[in-house]
This record gives sequence, C-alpha cells and structure tokens, in this order.
Amino acid sequence: MSLLRHLFSPRSVAIIGASSDPRKIGGRPIRFMKAYGYAGRILPINANAAEIQGLPAYARVEDVVGEVDQALIVVPAAAAEDALRGCVAKGVKVVQVLSSGFGEAGDEGRILQDRLVRIAREAGMRMTGPNALGVVSPGERYFGTFSTALEGMCPEPGGVAMVTQSGAFGSCAYVMAMRRGLGLSRVIATGNEADVDVSELIGLLADDAQTRVICAAVEACKDGERLRAALRKAAARNKPVIVMKVGTTEVGAAAAATHTGSLAGNDAVYDAVFRECGAYRARSIEEMIDVAYACSLGGMPGNDRVGIVTVSGGIGILMADAASEAGLALPAPSASALHAMREVLPFVTGANPLDVTAQIAVNRAAITAIGQTMVDDADYGALLIYLANNALAPPVFETTKQAVLALRHARPDVLLVTVMPAEDGVRMALEEAGVLVFEDPSRAVRSVAAAAELRRLQQDASEAVPAARPGAALPAGEFDEAGAKALLAQAGVPVLDERVVHTAEDAAAHAERLGGAVVLKIVSPEILHKTEVGGVALGLQGGQAVRQGFETILQRVRTAAPQARIDGVLVAPMAGPGVETIVGVHVDPVFGAVMMFGLGGIFVELFRDVAFASAPLSPARARRLIRATRGSALLDGWRGAAPVDVQALVDVLCRLSAFAATHAHELASIEINPLLVRESGCVALDAVITMRNPSERAPV
Amino acid sequence: MSLLRHLFSPRSVAIIGASSDPRKIGGRPIRFMKAYGYAGRILPINANAAEIQGLPAYARVEDVVGEVDQALIVVPAAAAEDALRGCVAKGVKVVQVLSSGFGEAGDEGRILQDRLVRIAREAGMRMTGPNALGVVSPGERYFGTFSTALEGMCPEPGGVAMVTQSGAFGSCAYVMAMRRGLGLSRVIATGNEADVDVSELIGLLADDAQTRVICAAVEACKDGERLRAALRKAAARNKPVIVMKVGTTEVGAAAAATHTGSLAGNDAVYDAVFRECGAYRARSIEEMIDVAYACSLGGMPGNDRVGIVTVSGGIGILMADAASEAGLALPAPSASALHAMREVLPFVTGANPLDVTAQIAVNRAAITAIGQTMVDDADYGALLIYLANNALAPPVFETTKQAVLALRHARPDVLLVTVMPAEDGVRMALEEAGVLVFEDPSRAVRSVAAAAELRRLQQDASEAVPAARPGAALPAGEFDEAGAKALLAQAGVPVLDERVVHTAEDAAAHAERLGGAVVLKIVSPEILHKTEVGGVALGLQGGQAVRQGFETILQRVRTAAPQARIDGVLVAPMAGPGVETIVGVHVDPVFGAVMMFGLGGIFVELFRDVAFASAPLSPARARRLIRATRGSALLDGWRGAAPVDVQALVDVLCRLSAFAATHAHELASIEINPLLVRESGCVALDAVITMRNPSERAPV
Repeated sequence: MSLLRHLFSPRSVAIIGASSDPRKIGGRPIRFMKAYGYAGRILPINANAAEIQGLPAYARVEDVVGEVDQALIVVPAAAAEDALRGCVAKGVKVVQVLSSGFGEAGDEGRILQDRLVRIAREAGMRMTGPNALGVVSPGERYFGTFSTALEGMCPEPGGVAMVTQSGAFGSCAYVMAMRRGLGLSRVIATGNEADVDVSELIGLLADDAQTRVICAAVEACKDGERLRAALRKAAARNKPVIVMKVGTTEVGAAAAATHTGSLAGNDAVYDAVFRECGAYRARSIEEMIDVAYACSLGGMPGNDRVGIVTVSGGIGILMADAASEAGLALPAPSASALHAMREVLPFVTGANPLDVTAQIAVNRAAITAIGQTMVDDADYGALLIYLANNALAPPVFETTKQAVLALRHARPDVLLVTVMPAEDGVRMALEEAGVLVFEDPSRAVRSVAAAAELRRLQQDASEAVPAARPGAALPAGEFDEAGAKALLAQAGVPVLDERVVHTAEDAAAHAERLGGAVVLKIVSPEILHKTEVGGVALGLQGGQAVRQGFETILQRVRTAAPQARIDGVLVAPMAGPGVETIVGVHVDPVFGAVMMFGLGGIFVELFRDVAFASAPLSPARARRLIRATRGSALLDGWRGAAPVDVQALVDVLCRLSAFAATHAHELASIEINPLLVRESGCVALDAVITMRNPSERAPV
Repeated sequence: MSLLRHLFSPRSVAIIGASSDPRKIGGRPIRFMKAYGYAGRILPINANAAEIQGLPAYARVEDVVGEVDQALIVVPAAAAEDALRGCVAKGVKVVQVLSSGFGEAGDEGRILQDRLVRIAREAGMRMTGPNALGVVSPGERYFGTFSTALEGMCPEPGGVAMVTQSGAFGSCAYVMAMRRGLGLSRVIATGNEADVDVSELIGLLADDAQTRVICAAVEACKDGERLRAALRKAAARNKPVIVMKVGTTEVGAAAAATHTGSLAGNDAVYDAVFRECGAYRARSIEEMIDVAYACSLGGMPGNDRVGIVTVSGGIGILMADAASEAGLALPAPSASALHAMREVLPFVTGANPLDVTAQIAVNRAAITAIGQTMVDDADYGALLIYLANNALAPPVFETTKQAVLALRHARPDVLLVTVMPAEDGVRMALEEAGVLVFEDPSRAVRSVAAAAELRRLQQDASEAVPAARPGAALPAGEFDEAGAKALLAQAGVPVLDERVVHTAEDAAAHAERLGGAVVLKIVSPEILHKTEVGGVALGLQGGQAVRQGFETILQRVRTAAPQARIDGVLVAPMAGPGVETIVGVHVDPVFGAVMMFGLGGIFVELFRDVAFASAPLSPARARRLIRATRGSALLDGWRGAAPVDVQALVDVLCRLSAFAATHAHELASIEINPLLVRESGCVALDAVITMRNPSERAPV
C-alpha cells in the first residue's frame, strides 16, 4: 500500500537534477506540476541554484527539511548512483530513475543499473526505471514525468490506469486515451524494470480505490508467476485488465523438434496466461482504449445476451451480424413484450434488432419504456441503441437524451450503449451517467463483446486450480519411446502393454502373449519420426508375420538411417479405433509448464487448431482447453461415429499437467502423438520426452 | 453520361411539393441549396404560393420556362403519379421520387410504384426511388435531398462517392465520413430502386471525372450481371470500389440438401462476386471510410511490400505484427542502404521496422533522406512512419512536416502514411499533399493492406473470363448416381468405367471385365447418403466376393430403407489413392451458377474451408479458387505424399463451370463428393445433381 501511495500520490517530491529551463527534462516535471496544480511539496535539487522556476532549490536531497516521499532522478547516468545514495541517506520512500544510459545502453550501463538496484534493495527503498518515463496521477494532479505528451493537454481524471514498460508506447496510448475523452487514474511507464515491474503495478492497482480498470502493455515479462498472481488478484477484485503483448519472439531451435514446441510460440503462451488469469488481450491500442472506455464507464455486462434497438433496419442488421460474429447472443423478446412495445409505438418492427424506425420522432421519450420492456423481458446484459444523427443537434436530441438517461437510471445494471455521432456536450452528459457513446456501430458491438468476455474470463479465473506438488527427480539422460512411455505410465497416462525385444523370436513370443494383431516399431533415441525411415509395421498377426516384420523393419531402418543407434523393437497390441489427439507439454522459460492440446494430423499441422493452458490443470480447465479447439467436435461423434471418452482425456490432461508442473525444472517438453481417445478410455501410442540440459535445470 | 450529369449536377431543379417552412421535407432541399450556394436554378412547385423561401414558385412544373434537368417529388404518395406526369409533359430529364408509401409499404404501394416506373420508362425519363433520400454533390453545391444529416454540416468536396440503397445507412456513413474529414464527390441513396439502382450508379460513377473512389452499400441486388459489369468497369478504370453487404439471408431448405447448398449462403456468393470483380468488401462503416480515405488521398500501393519507420521500438513491432497478419510483406532494406542511413543518422537500429528513436529530434529533416533511401532500395509500395505526438504541437512539428512533404514530393508513387495524433491544421496540410494521417497504428496498417488488396483484386478482375455458351437442354426429371455421372461425363468430368447391374451374376461379370478389386454401390434416386444405409461395399476381389457383396448390400438397404426405390447396383473399379475433394455448383437466383471447391470431409464440414467463384471459370480463376482454401496444401504432397494432379483438377473445374453456366436455367445444384485427385488425373467417385422444378426454369 505504501508503494502505491508514495509512487502515485506523494505528498512531497524531490527533482534531483532540477532545471530552471521549463523545456528541459529536469525542468518539465516542475512546470507540469506548477501549471496543473499539484498540491504537495515540489523540491528542486540542484547544487548550482538557490531557486528553480520560482521555488526554493536545495543543493542535496539530504538538505530538505521534512519527509520526501518520492524523488525523480534526472541527472546523467554517471551521477545517478550518488543521487540514489543521497535518497537513501534522506530516507526517500520511492525513487523514479528517469535518466537513461543503463541496461538499455549495453554492458556498462547494465553494471551501473545493477548497482542502483543493490543500493535501493539494501536500503529497503523502492525504485522505478532506470530509463523510466515517470508517473501521472490526474486525480492528485501529480506529474512525476518529463513526457512531452503532457504538453498543453492536462489529462482528465477518471478510473482507468495505464501501465506500460516502454515510455513511447505508453505515450502513444496515453494521448489516444486523452483524445478519446477517457478519464485516467494513473499512468506509468516503468522503463528497464530493475526493481518495480508491470506485474507488481497491476497487483498494486488492483487495490487502488481510484482505479476501476487497468490497461497494461507487457513487453518482456521476467516473472511469470508474479504476472499471473497480479492478474488473478485484479480479476478477484472484479477490476477488468485489458492487456497488450508487444514483441513476439522466435521459438528456440531446440523446442522446434516437436509440434508442441513449434506451436508454443511465446505469443500463444502469453495468450493462454492472460485468458486463464482473467485478462482480455487487445490487439490494437484503439481496441484497448475502447474496451477500457466500455468497462470504466458502463461496467461489464452480466451476461452475453444483447438487445439492439435501432432507427434504421440496415444499421440494425449490421450490428446483429457483428454481434453474432463476436459470440454474443441475440435472443428475441417474448411475444407479450413485443405486444407491450407496440402499444407504446405501433410502428415498431422486428424483434431483436427492434426497429423503431425514424418515426420514433413522434414520441422520442418512448425510448425509455421500449428499452426497459426489452431488458426486463429478455434479461439482456447490454442494450445497444442506434440513434442516427440527432445527437449532433443538441436541442433536437434533448428529449432523446433525457429518455436514455431515464432508462439508465431505471436499469443501471444493464450496459447501455448509444450508437451515433454526438456533439461533445451531449456525449459527455451521457458518459457522466454511465451511458456509452460509440460512433461506429461495429466498434460499439465489438467493445460490448469484449466487456462481456472479460466478465466470463474473470469468472473462469476465479475457479480454484491445483498447485504444483514436489516430486522425486526424474532419471537423467535421454528417453527412447519405451522409456518415455514408462515415464508417462508413472505420471498416470495409460500406455499399451508393450515390450522392447531384440530378437524376432522374442517379438513373436510377446505377440502371442498379447493375442490379436500387433504393431512393431523401431526403438532408437536418434529417430524421432519412425514412419519416415520405415521403422513401423502395423497389423501383424501370427508368429510368422511378426518374425518377418521384425527383420523387415531392421533392414529398412539400417538402410535409411545407418548411423542411428538401435535399442530394439517395440511389440505392442493394435490400439483399435478412436480419435487421435496430440497432447503436449512445453516448458516456457517465463511461465513454466504449459499444456497443449489438439486433434491429430492436419488439425495441428495445417489449421494450427491447438490450444494452450498452464499446468497444472483442474478438470474444468482441461475441458476448456479441449473445447478451445474446433476439432474437438470430433470427440462427440462425428458423422455417426460413437462419441469417445472425453472424461478419460480430461483425466490424462490433468495427470500429465500435474507431472509436468512437478518436473518443470527438469523437462524441456513432452509430446504424446497420438493419444488415442477411445469409446472407453484413452491410450498414448507414441511419445517423445526431451529433457533440459543438466546445466539448464534451474527451478522454473 | 446524361443521367450522370442530370442526376448529380443539374443546371435546374424543380421541387414538386416545395414548402415555405425550411424545416419541412419540401422546404429543406431549397434551404440547403440556398445556404450552401447552389448555382443552378431552384424551382419551387406549389399551387398555393407565389413565392417560396424568397424564390418565385410555380403552380405546376409545366409552367416553368426553360429546361428542367431534375425534379424532386416530395408530395404524398397518392399525388406522386400526377406530379410524375407533369414531369413527363415538361420533359424533365431525371426525377427523384423522395416520397415514401410505395413498395416498402405493402401491396398497394407496390402497385403505385409499378405505375410510376411504367410512366417514366414510356417517356424515356429516368427515376430514382421512390422512398429515396436524394443526392448530394458537394463540388457543385447541389443538394437534392431532405436529409437532416446535412443540418449545420456542409460536406467537403472530394473524390469519394457514396452510393447506398437505404437512406438511413447512407446518412450514417455520410456523417461518419464528414467527421473523418473525407472529401465527397457524390452521395446518393436510391431507396426502392424501381428504376435506377446501386449497380447502375457504380457503373456511371466509374466514368465520373469527379469521383476517384466509390463506396457502395448493397442490400438486395436484383440483377447480378449488372452489378458484376459495373464493378468490373470500375476496376478497369482503376477506381477502387469499397463495398458493404448488409443483410445476410438464410439459404433455402431445398438447397441445403448438399454441402454446396448449405455453404453457399447468399453472403458467401456476394463475397466471391465482389472479389472476382475487383471490389474490396469492408466489414464496418469505419473500415469502409478508412479504406476510401487511403485510396482517395494516397492511392493504391503498387505492391504488397511495406516499409516501417518508427521513433518507438514498441509501436514499430505492433505495426509489423499487424502488417504480417494482414498479409503484407516486410522485406528489409539492403545492408548498403542501412549503411547509407546510418551515415545520416548514426543511431538508427533495426531494419524494417527501422527505429530512428526519439533522437530523430537532433535532425528531423533527415526523415526525407531516410524514407527515400528505404523506398529506393527495397521498392516498398507503401511507407508508414510513426512519429509519436509532436504533430499535436505544430511549431515543433514544422520541420518534420516539411521533411515528410519533401519525401512525398520525391516519391509520389509510394503510398506515404504518417501515424500519429495530429492537430487539424497539420493533418490537413499533409492530406492535401496526399500523405495519409492515422492515429491508431494498427488501423493505419490495416487500411494500407486493404488498399494493396484492392490493387491485387483489380488486377485479377482484369483477366479475361470465358463467356457462357448455349447448349442443348438437359433431360428432364431426377438423376440417380449413374445418371448424374453420365451427365458429368458429358460435361467432360472423368468418371470410372462403371455399370449398373441388376443381378449378382452381372455384377461378377463386370468386375471380371474390369480386373482388380471393385466397389459396389446401391443405385436409388431416393437415397442420398448410401453409406448410412449400408449401401456400399469396398474392395471386393473375385467373383465369389462380388456376388456375395451384391446380395449383402441389397439386404441391408431393404432393411434400412424399405420404402426406397432401388434401380440396381453400381459396379466400379476401386479408385486408388489420391486426395478427396468436393466440387460443387450452386445456382444462385441473382448471380447464376457459382462454383464451390473444398477438400473432402472435415475440411468442409468442420472448418468450412471452402471457396466460391462464379461460373464459367478461366484456368487462372480455377487455380485461385483452389488456392483460396487452406486444405489445398494437401494437393501439393502432404507429409511426404506425392503431389497430385492439380492441372487435371483445374481442367475439371473449368469444364464443369462451363457446363453449369450453360445449364444454369435448368440446374439447381451439382455436387461431386468426392472428386478424387490422383497423381495423374482425377475422377468423380460420387455425384448428386438436382434440377430446378420445370416451373422455375426461367433464364438466369
């Protein structure tokens, strides 16, 4: 709590490197605070001036009498350490190092930066930056920043916090938010994040009374668990988090050996983490601001059902198309509700969209009754009203405005959205009452859909998830197929009763014991794709066929891969019918063990129809992971086939995810391909497990 | 040409039903024209006034001395016929019937409307509406409309025409365009389209010197060929057409019996027609306006390659992500170009995006050299420059603005886009020089991508397509599988050497003649899905197996479908390996024969991975149709399989499309499922052909 207060609403701030020139970096924060009415103490620190911009200046921060909540360090990098030591000596609570020339500038800067963190940590003092852009708290008129984005545009106070690492990205988003008329609670750009990072701030702002919605841009998260915890905390407080992830990275070559590795790009993992921790991922700054606008002014709708009232059939259909594309439901009001509405306005047509036509002009006040009847009847979480162009003529629009405000007053629990171009005064009056105003119909619908999705994501995020449990260390070295399956069996994943043999006779003997047809597969840690070297024979029945198959396989593999070490041949029963799926584990350097699920073959390879989720999984999350793929429809019985055992698949996902979480510091990846899901139960038919190099086996 | 002139720039206009009250429908057009400076003759027609809004009024249009180019009819529906006859008597060139109460109001209105069209057509007079909203030509200050959207906001003249059917939709788009600062050439809402329709107007505006870009909203096209011709004409003139389709309709139950029918929703067909005729389909009004803005000010980029220059790494990456998602290429400049740029600005990093960092402030004029080096080196069709927030402070931005203008001057062939919030004066100065200004980085990129796509679509649309040829009538009645295949063979589609037999002996005899394994299939016009009734047996080898298979099939079918008429059993050779595809024909009531292509099975059923194109196809279009599906990757040899004969598939698509176009007035649909594409050649394994009812066999 004290970091929150000292960072965003300090009662006193020292500017170390203060300048008399209000255009310079050391002069701007002072100018902004004076011009925009900061009520705390502004303490310029400058050894060569007695007065700075009309304020008494101090040679050193230690010379200040009284407490210093926050210091801004704007001196050159080389002088920052001294300045920081001064802050320690003075007992400053939070320091913002706005100077650049540190970690972002190369090795020397990195050493300087590490020294700053050590000094601050030893003193129990918190620090943002270095290379930070600073903080703005419009409500407190606090401007601890030199950002030129504030030039001539004092931000409106409001409920949206904006947290970014990059100052440039933050400034871009900040200015777009201001121009959109969005009220801001806190704006901060954390720079190099040597101490305070975006994750910690999200967690802090979840407790900030002034902040209702958090917008965050994540660039390079270093601590996945901290980000997860912060997002979950915000979700638990019902504070929407709208997040952007900038900068996708290439996957390492090592990981690319399996589907799981090549598909689990950094981006897909972030995507999964955001969703499961209840945050909405925006794909553009405009979208982030739209969704923040909707959530901060109107709130998240209570359900996915939307009603549409329109004065134009064409725009109504446009909105309905956009709504169903965005996954919103458009249930019609009941016949009796429609009857009641026709009593008020005989000319209404349609149902949802309900077209009140331009004839609404004969009784504009009826919007209240129409809207209320609709939401009372059909329990819409949001109601969108398209009102053409009247809001550009405020006198003409006055009755409509009052009618909309009355509707908002009657049903404040429903997200109420007007769609129209509006004169600024009209717009602001509606917004003040919590009514949204969008000009573009499709954008209005998409923003409502995002707000509804946020509510769903927050609900899902509130479900309990199992914690990773400790376990005994895995054996070192590489695993061949048999070894991988033994490990899976240990993790609770069903495998076939199969055996590695070294002679044709042993192969025939095991086949006889199994009964029925068998499959033979080459066992070699150096051959990942067995089929391609002729290392697989299917459906062999009887001793003679098995013996012959054994010899054929060895011969083909020796020809195709003469250098490969061969550890034997696997004899297994034929698996029978079922749906082939791929289940993978990818151990991400930041987020730890992550599960992948997809249907086999072209689903994964051509359509990239896979989904990711963090390990360990609860059964509900495992189900959600499965259903996030389109191909999962095949599990339910496709074209007359019998449905397969989804519950068994859920069990396997949960068990494997627990195993993966336990061994995340040893594993690099697991891929079961295929995991055959049968009418009853499922079974791993092939698996590849890759371990980290021992040198990399740090705790995740 | 004369309709274009008389409709959009009449030298004289009569308002029949003119009102002295400038707020009334009959008064508004006169007020607008007077207020905004129309230079032609305004002729109020009103039997009860000698003067209207300060202008001499006439009792009847026939009383006017001199030519009347255009008349607006705003009298009630019942009086419209008399008014129209007056226009005929006077020799008015074009009449806009703005009154409502016609086709949109029920049967009586429809009769009135039909009478108006007859009168106009007999007189050779053209007519818009009824129930139209009128015309605006900002360049000529002509305002033949009563739209309240003009209240207090005189539109800027410019190069964008906006053509809609619905007045409400048009007003919404018009006001959004005005607020976006988009200059307009013509705005028209055609209403009920009893005579002039959106298609005709697109064709006219393709020849309009004032119009550089056409925005159109299509609701219910009645004449597909006219729309196609108009779009192709605009594409041939290199006039971008950005179109919205509002109102998707449900597919008829009859058509839903096949995949082709159920997937060929009205919407998918419109989509195909727009694309192949060179038009870009926008999904929101905002998008339509963005793309029109880009094309009208900057033009269509010459290729899909974009360069990005940025002052912020984060925004650069955001734009690069958006660009690759939108299908744009981001090639890097050469090492020597990078070297040259570092000579100018030593601190630039990256390549594309090229990050000039905030240090560009030391030499803002360098943007010209940097930009020119990039486009000269890497042949970018478009260059996007992110410039942070300086354009909000015009004096600070002046040098940058001049540098950007110099770059535009040096390379006017490259689409130059600045990305930044900008003060209005700055924005307008840039726009006047043809430099685009976007605030949101992602939206800037998407708009450039759309403009680039328009160029590609226009190029593709310019390719010659074969014309439909006449042919002999098809046999009447229903087709069983054998009949359908016989018809396909006639169309030039390869089928297997198969025969319908009625006894087990004949089955065995034909199997022997074929040699190798055969397949047996039940033949019944009443069974569409043979497998589901056990009506198929595969891989039968030898006389005994074939005889037994024959009996088994009959027995199973008689059990599963005891009522079905059975016409025999088909004996065919096994088709061998290949890729299963679905090829369909859907005869659309508006657009005629349309081809569908997709890969078999789950590709179509689960992923809806299908594409449509109008018949007949050229080989180039057939190839494009195939490649529009993701599944087409399987044709090239998936996971080590041999590639199959795509050329044979192209041939089949072309031949079937020619057949479909010839018989569009007889056919309802054709579906070949599967068409097996083999390493050499392809073959139809099963087909369903449905014919129209004879009563519906009107020419398409």
